[in-house]
Amino acid sequence: MSQFEALNALKTIRPSGRKPDQLRSITIETGVTRYAEGSCMVSFGHTKVLVTASVEQGVPPFLKGKGQGWVTAEYGMLPRSTHTRSRREAAAGKQSGRTQEIQRLIGRSMRAVVDLKALGERQITIDCDVIQADGGTRTAAITGAWVALSMACNYLLIEKVISKNPILDQIAAISCGIFAGTPVLDLDYEEDSNAETDANFVITGSGDAVEIQATGEKRGFSRDEFNALFDLAHAGAIELFALQNKALGK
Amino acid sequence: MSQFEALNALKTIRPSGRKPDQLRSITIETGVTRYAEGSCMVSFGHTKVLVTASVEQGVPPFLKGKGQGWVTAEYGMLPRSTHTRSRREAAAGKQSGRTQEIQRLIGRSMRAVVDLKALGERQITIDCDVIQADGGTRTAAITGAWVALSMACNYLLIEKVISKNPILDQIAAISCGIFAGTPVLDLDYEEDSNAETDANFVITGSGDAVEIQATGEKRGFSRDEFNALFDLAHAGAIELFALQNKALGK
Amino acid sequence: MSQFEALNALKTIRPSGRKPDQLRSITIETGVTRYAEGSCMVSFGHTKVLVTASVEQGVPPFLKGKGQGWVTAEYGMLPRSTHTRSRREAAAGKQSGRTQEIQRLIGRSMRAVVDLKALGERQITIDCDVIQADGGTRTAAITGAWVALSMACNYLLIEKVISKNPILDQIAAISCGIFAGTPVLDLDYEEDSNAETDANFVITGSGDAVEIQATGEKRGFSRDEFNALFDLAHAGAIELFALQNKALGK
Amino acid sequence: MSQFEALNALKTIRPSGRKPDQLRSITIETGVTRYAEGSCMVSFGHTKVLVTASVEQGVPPFLKGKGQGWVTAEYGMLPRSTHTRSRREAAAGKQSGRTQEIQRLIGRSMRAVVDLKALGERQITIDCDVIQADGGTRTAAITGAWVALSMACNYLLIEKVISKNPILDQIAAISCGIFAGTPVLDLDYEEDSNAETDANFVITGSGDAVEIQATGEKRGFSRDEFNALFDLAHAGAIELFALQNKALGK
Amino acid sequence: MSQFEALNALKTIRPSGRKPDQLRSITIETGVTRYAEGSCMVSFGHTKVLVTASVEQGVPPFLKGKGQGWVTAEYGMLPRSTHTRSRREAAAGKQSGRTQEIQRLIGRSMRAVVDLKALGERQITIDCDVIQADGGTRTAAITGAWVALSMACNYLLIEKVISKNPILDQIAAISCGIFAGTPVLDLDYEEDSNAETDANFVITGSGDAVEIQATGEKRGFSRDEFNALFDLAHAGAIELFALQNKALGK
Amino acid sequence: MSQFEALNALKTIRPSGRKPDQLRSITIETGVTRYAEGSCMVSFGHTKVLVTASVEQGVPPFLKGKGQGWVTAEYGMLPRSTHTRSRREAAAGKQSGRTQEIQRLIGRSMRAVVDLKALGERQITIDCDVIQADGGTRTAAITGAWVALSMACNYLLIEKVISKNPILDQIAAISCGIFAGTPVLDLDYEEDSNAETDANFVITGSGDAVEIQATGEKRGFSRDEFNALFDLAHAGAIELFALQNKALGK
Repeated sequence: MSQFEALNALKTIRPSGRKPDQLRSITIETGVTRYAEGSCMVSFGHTKVLVTASVEQGVPPFLKGKGQGWVTAEYGMLPRSTHTRSRREAAAGKQSGRTQEIQRLIGRSMRAVVDLKALGERQITIDCDVIQADGGTRTAAITGAWVALSMACNYLLIEKVISKNPILDQIAAISCGIFAGTPVLDLDYEEDSNAETDANFVITGSGDAVEIQATGEKRGFSRDEFNALFDLAHAGAIELFALQNKALGK
Repeated sequence: MSQFEALNALKTIRPSGRKPDQLRSITIETGVTRYAEGSCMVSFGHTKVLVTASVEQGVPPFLKGKGQGWVTAEYGMLPRSTHTRSRREAAAGKQSGRTQEIQRLIGRSMRAVVDLKALGERQITIDCDVIQADGGTRTAAITGAWVALSMACNYLLIEKVISKNPILDQIAAISCGIFAGTPVLDLDYEEDSNAETDANFVITGSGDAVEIQATGEKRGFSRDEFNALFDLAHAGAIELFALQNKALGK
Repeated sequence: MSQFEALNALKTIRPSGRKPDQLRSITIETGVTRYAEGSCMVSFGHTKVLVTASVEQGVPPFLKGKGQGWVTAEYGMLPRSTHTRSRREAAAGKQSGRTQEIQRLIGRSMRAVVDLKALGERQITIDCDVIQADGGTRTAAITGAWVALSMACNYLLIEKVISKNPILDQIAAISCGIFAGTPVLDLDYEEDSNAETDANFVITGSGDAVEIQATGEKRGFSRDEFNALFDLAHAGAIELFALQNKALGK
Repeated sequence: MSQFEALNALKTIRPSGRKPDQLRSITIETGVTRYAEGSCMVSFGHTKVLVTASVEQGVPPFLKGKGQGWVTAEYGMLPRSTHTRSRREAAAGKQSGRTQEIQRLIGRSMRAVVDLKALGERQITIDCDVIQADGGTRTAAITGAWVALSMACNYLLIEKVISKNPILDQIAAISCGIFAGTPVLDLDYEEDSNAETDANFVITGSGDAVEIQATGEKRGFSRDEFNALFDLAHAGAIELFALQNKALGK
Repeated sequence: MSQFEALNALKTIRPSGRKPDQLRSITIETGVTRYAEGSCMVSFGHTKVLVTASVEQGVPPFLKGKGQGWVTAEYGMLPRSTHTRSRREAAAGKQSGRTQEIQRLIGRSMRAVVDLKALGERQITIDCDVIQADGGTRTAAITGAWVALSMACNYLLIEKVISKNPILDQIAAISCGIFAGTPVLDLDYEEDSNAETDANFVITGSGDAVEIQATGEKRGFSRDEFNALFDLAHAGAIELFALQNKALGK
Repeated sequence: MSQFEALNALKTIRPSGRKPDQLRSITIETGVTRYAEGSCMVSFGHTKVLVTASVEQGVPPFLKGKGQGWVTAEYGMLPRSTHTRSRREAAAGKQSGRTQEIQRLIGRSMRAVVDLKALGERQITIDCDVIQADGGTRTAAITGAWVALSMACNYLLIEKVISKNPILDQIAAISCGIFAGTPVLDLDYEEDSNAETDANFVITGSGDAVEIQATGEKRGFSRDEFNALFDLAHAGAIELFALQNKALGK
């Protein structure tokens, strides 16, 4: 009986009735906006994120004349994407620290699998707007971002703007956590609010990680606990890669 | 042959092939988010606006202790809701003058048909987020806002938080304009960018107007021209009222 | 007995004792500052707005190299121009939505009567600063703005910077409203605070309108009511054109 | 022959033809706005500052419950009060360091001659808005501020809000500088831009100074030079006190 | 030969000549400011961070009346703490995303080892100001923050403000990375700029982790690589705990 | 018996036990950071300011192409440099009026003794960060700024970037005040908070002043009182010049 089989044999403690290693129902619908070069609505259960990839000529000042492109990301939550309404960041006059942290993470993750030289002197901006939040918005955003980014690169190839696909590898992200003492995959909001440890993993198609952010919310976590989370994440990522490919019609 | 029949007899000059007094295909889908007390996705052709109505206890400081409620609105466009990406207002650190103008208009329009005393000391915030923009986002937002607001008031009635429906009348909004010399109803982006005159009308179920904003974009407009636009708006509003009622299951 | 004669026959209901179609005492004093290329102090009764027109070389980035000029406007109220002191916008760190709405309106109105090609690659900025506010500041500002703008264009002609007057038509603005059930012209603050409907009209010398902003403050307004306001505005504009011309020594 | 007679005997080097110890033509017109509890337009030659004093109930948080009042000041320049248009601070989103420095100086100066206990728990805000700038705006502002402040205190006495005049002494301000090697009084813009040393003195009716700000613009200044400026300031202040009293009808 | 012995047997590839598992020279000098309830200057080689812990009565609004305290942190870099001068954040008008990310990390780390109930309704703010930056500023800041926090808690115990030490465990942080293909401990700037993977670990005295942030800078990292970094971090933390205790005189 | 001997003969009234004309213990330690072209930690008693001088290519836009350089300064206080923690300006989103006033003063003072032509088209930015505040931070900052600036100029000479030393004269600053009726030199915080008059003098090696800022805190000050302060400042400056030279190894 494998590690996961053992976990799953337990009477589940998850509010949703899911098994510890079970993802929520995940869908990635592409082509959801008319204008963006790439777009998708990615749903992880009730979490829904609208992702667009926009191609623009030119690069930020610090890259001028270096013969390479740039990929960056912005993230936002609609004010009533949450249980109670949050203040609109545009009205507040600034993005919160959490927002900036998340959009930096998405941008770094995308750049980890893009050949910026092959992109040429242009920028792709990934906008991730949370329509509905039920935990895991940043991992859903990253998973969808790669799909939108791939579509935008395909567009550039088809339009013969570039001749080589700058996408080097597949990438997806998933959250794991220790809930009620048990390592579980893909936390929803109810689990996330009560998790003892919360960890986000960004993993490439080759199986390497490019980002890990793990936080002990109420207590520290042991090496074994962390390893169990890492195992769950690897297994989850493989499912996400398949869903991404399916969304892209591969 | 009536005024509109005469207009429609002309070989249409509209890029979409619509008749001068023809609305785009309009849909109002309610209940599109899990958390908001009222919500809808309103589409005027390719223009799509997600509207939520959020009920919160308490009122702004200037109304404290006056025994009445408040209805306000916020408006935003997703960065890639437009043909080319616009800067995210939260990143820019402020809302543009246009955004503020529109959200003030939506708020005033809603308050025109709400009995704020009957609402009690609570606030309903209408969030109008443009998912895709193809002209007429503010009028689509107002039309959807009334639907979301009605749902939120129904929620308060059902929950017995209030005993009397604060909604006094129905309200909807529509744009009209003079395009290629002809008065037309419900401008799309291509028409809007080239219109000689652009006018937005907010009209109540009783047939009165509560807001008119008319602008001569390239030249002034005559009294006759304005009257033709006003006629179109009245006729369009009647269609919108029916669509709103249908969306609410009336 | 004409429509206006009938109105005026009524025992007036206006706090100021004015007849329904009677403007306040209006003065436009030009040349009130030493430095601006055009300037005036425009008074509509107790409302006083200092307007300057400043010519600057160059145009905003979005017009670079297009062989045309630009006219824009900024608006502000001195903190104690009002009955009770308002917060200074420079100290608050931003302009209110109302301020932005008004300055956008002034700018659009001026551009409606200027040949931007004839202006060449230069910008004229109209600053409208309210010294004292008693209702109708935006319409007084527009009426004065045209005078200051004309002076600045004359200056450019006299200095032989341009060879053709870019001013295409005259333009003025006036507010009307329904006060105590009666349509009245040129609302003062006391009327404005209690008006059922408030409408601002920007009208050109040729009799066309370029902007209409009408708001039902407490209830909607009927088509007939709106038409009565429009009639008042047309009549008022003719008086304003004469005052503008007199101020310019024509 | 006194020190000043000696100076004046010299062929004047001042662009305006004034004698070294000669003030510009100075006027203080009171009651220039309808709403403010105190107001004046103060002119030092072409420099014109509109000053209002506004009484408000309550004090800033740091003074709550201490049984005393507060006097504070704000300063602004209209965008075209200067030779070339300056950016509007409200549009820029912040007040410049210079603006803050000046308004802090005005506030401190006023508080130096006010018995804050006698004022009670209320605040008087002095707004100094420069209509036209030709050097010496801060000293004109202070000189006018005392007049507006006195009027506001008189208003409180007349209304029997307070029973004792909180004004302890008279106060006025004047600039002096070394221009073309000569100490001169009340610099205009042309002198100010070329002065070797620029000094502002705030002086009370009792002859004491409450603020001195002296700056060597191109070189340092000697003790003797400073003393000559201080002498000029004392003489100028006496003239200003008389003008303030005359403005107040004393 | 253990894992680390094997690593160290290699001819070192570190620019500093350090062995792979060797910390820089680390010092923690306490009591470096007169006013703060706790303070230290923590140096990791050339990286120097001044840390103060300030006790204030009261808690943030979201904790009012909940019978518990709060620990938060702020982080900043002096403009010339870096090789080339960076823009001062106070002058720029906002904290960068990086700054916010780091100060949130420091705050979460401290709260992980504090019994907020035992702290009572007061807040301890940890200020971490980087005097000189040579890599690892956030880990140095966390390591020093625990020392300053402990001092502040001791102060509260000695002053009998609280009766029970709210510090539950020791905590320290260290960076590790893969440099030139080799896992190394405590990266300096030269290593950090060229590292293939960069990971920060926050570890408690009990050996658990409370935060892990790992980033593949140029490529992803394998599970084995990550485990090597985790091993280095555990070993490094033990050294840091001893240095913290020594600094506190334990 | 001289003026100062007479003062000193009095039983001292200073909290620190210092004589009226006695400076605090002053130290200037140079070379305190690795990266800055010039740096020092300047201490006036418990007041400690870290000063760095950073050389950058290029000048601000208003000096482009004028063949001269620029010297500017920025000032900040660490949040807990004071008795009670102050809000971090970067978190507040703006620099206070006091901060801006001080950094403008430091910049003007430095420029008064620099030949900007000799500096060439480069900028030296002086950062003055207060590590601990016990009164006199701005005068300590100026005194240290000249040392750091001199070091940066020496660096440019040694590197043969410039061929002539742009430093024209020495400069230092000192505060004086009237405390308990007595003129005293170099006020500490306890004296400063209770001083009747507070004056800052910036004085050059040639004995001229370049800046004087004197404020009557509780009452005005007489001409005689001011002269006594000026005498103290001149004497104090001579001591500071010696300390600056010693710090520079002259």
